[in-house]
Amino acid sequence: MTYCLAMCLNDGLVFSSDSLTNSGVDYVRTYSKLHIFTPAPDRMYMLLSSGNLATTQEVLYRIQRDLDKDDDTPNLGNVDYLFEAADYIGRVSSDVQREHAAALKQGGISGDGTFIVGGQIAGKPHGLFRIYPQGNFISASAETPYLQIGENKYGKPVLDRVINAGLCLEDGARLALVSQNATSRSNISVGPPFELAIYKKDSLKIANHMRLAIESPYYQALSQAWQTGLVKTFMSLPRFDWEDRPD
Amino acid sequence: MTYCLAMCLNDGLVFSSDSLTNSGVDYVRTYSKLHIFTPAPDRMYMLLSSGNLATTQEVLYRIQRDLDKDDDTPNLGNVDYLFEAADYIGRVSSDVQREHAAALKQGGISGDGTFIVGGQIAGKPHGLFRIYPQGNFISASAETPYLQIGENKYGKPVLDRVINAGLCLEDGARLALVSQNATSRSNISVGPPFELAIYKKDSLKIANHMRLAIESPYYQALSQAWQTGLVKTFMSLPRFDWEDRPD
Repeated sequence: MTYCLAMCLNDGLVFSSDSLTNSGVDYVRTYSKLHIFTPAPDRMYMLLSSGNLATTQEVLYRIQRDLDKDDDTPNLGNVDYLFEAADYIGRVSSDVQREHAAALKQGGISGDGTFIVGGQIAGKPHGLFRIYPQGNFISASAETPYLQIGENKYGKPVLDRVINAGLCLEDGARLALVSQNATSRSNISVGPPFELAIYKKDSLKIANHMRLAIESPYYQALSQAWQTGLVKTFMSLPRFDWEDRPD
Repeated sequence: MTYCLAMCLNDGLVFSSDSLTNSGVDYVRTYSKLHIFTPAPDRMYMLLSSGNLATTQEVLYRIQRDLDKDDDTPNLGNVDYLFEAADYIGRVSSDVQREHAAALKQGGISGDGTFIVGGQIAGKPHGLFRIYPQGNFISASAETPYLQIGENKYGKPVLDRVINAGLCLEDGARLALVSQNATSRSNISVGPPFELAIYKKDSLKIANHMRLAIESPYYQALSQAWQTGLVKTFMSLPRFDWEDRPD
């Protein structure tokens, strides 16, 4: 399973992912799901992937091959708008899925791949899109500043309580880690190391890109503080009127 | 949609449910999903229901009809063990589903009903079971003291952080409300009024049974305190090492 989460905040972008990939419950591997492309000095993209690993890997290989070709066919290096990058990735993904569909169907396997792409092309605003397996896509907005793919439910309640587009990038990054932490506690197929990337708008380069293992001091401190704070908040909730202990 | 949650704690049982039922997104009604049966002085049952409303209602009618018959066929009044009550409800549910299955299949509709039953028969321990649409069932345990039916994911993270079988009944009830609150914030088809029932072991009667509307002062106070405490905890999480603001 996978849990990827990206935020489009006023100050820039926050991308996060877990790193577990599994085929059944007894074949669990670690793969990065957060990919950074800087194909030209005037642009920066971050990509998150979930779904069939063969599909998502082949999509990444093809994206790179199209960049290496350096011709006039659309690629991440020559599109003019971020939505055109989403559209391009959607077409590559649909192509890969279609080519393997018949064989996968025989095995009862889904070849679906789902992506989140975000970034900025110089002179245009930063942005964020979720690309469906069918190749179409939707963008984040000021009212809906985050997009998720994979196991999205367990990590959503805390997002809905805290997020707004005005959060600073570091608060966004902390919130992403708290959301990853919640998901990994409730679904054993989502887990560390967690990857985190922060992009400050108009910089056209990644400000921070880190990989947090379960034993990383920062991740440990964050998990502990969140757990302790939550239990403390719970224990201080208002009492029912029939309880005789003091508030 | 539905979210029902029950806990089997050392001190007794906590049952909770939302009250929304929907057929599509434009036909949302309010129905109680928490049903109490005290068919004899030596026993008390609580039942939570989710799934097809026609199925769950017919199951309840048949349970009452079997009690009214007052003969030797198994019913909630004459079984000797709680697991026999779960087995009985599972058979009634399977019967109802089977009788309507062909017609429902033509309309592409699922007739599945899922139940949680808990309670106590005098001289035996209190207990809790989830009954699957197929009629089989599993029980809660000291290690897994809660069972959920319906939309179970959004409300699970907070349960996993706080629950243990040693919680007092009131803490269990508060935790159930927090879990309902989290679910209703992330899924608009789950919502108040929330029903809550508390059973103290060996009492053979309900200690508290309440219905909390969204405007109920206690629910308002609890929601507010939880939201405020969560945001406060979030804002006090440890900073990344590159941040210059103080911890």
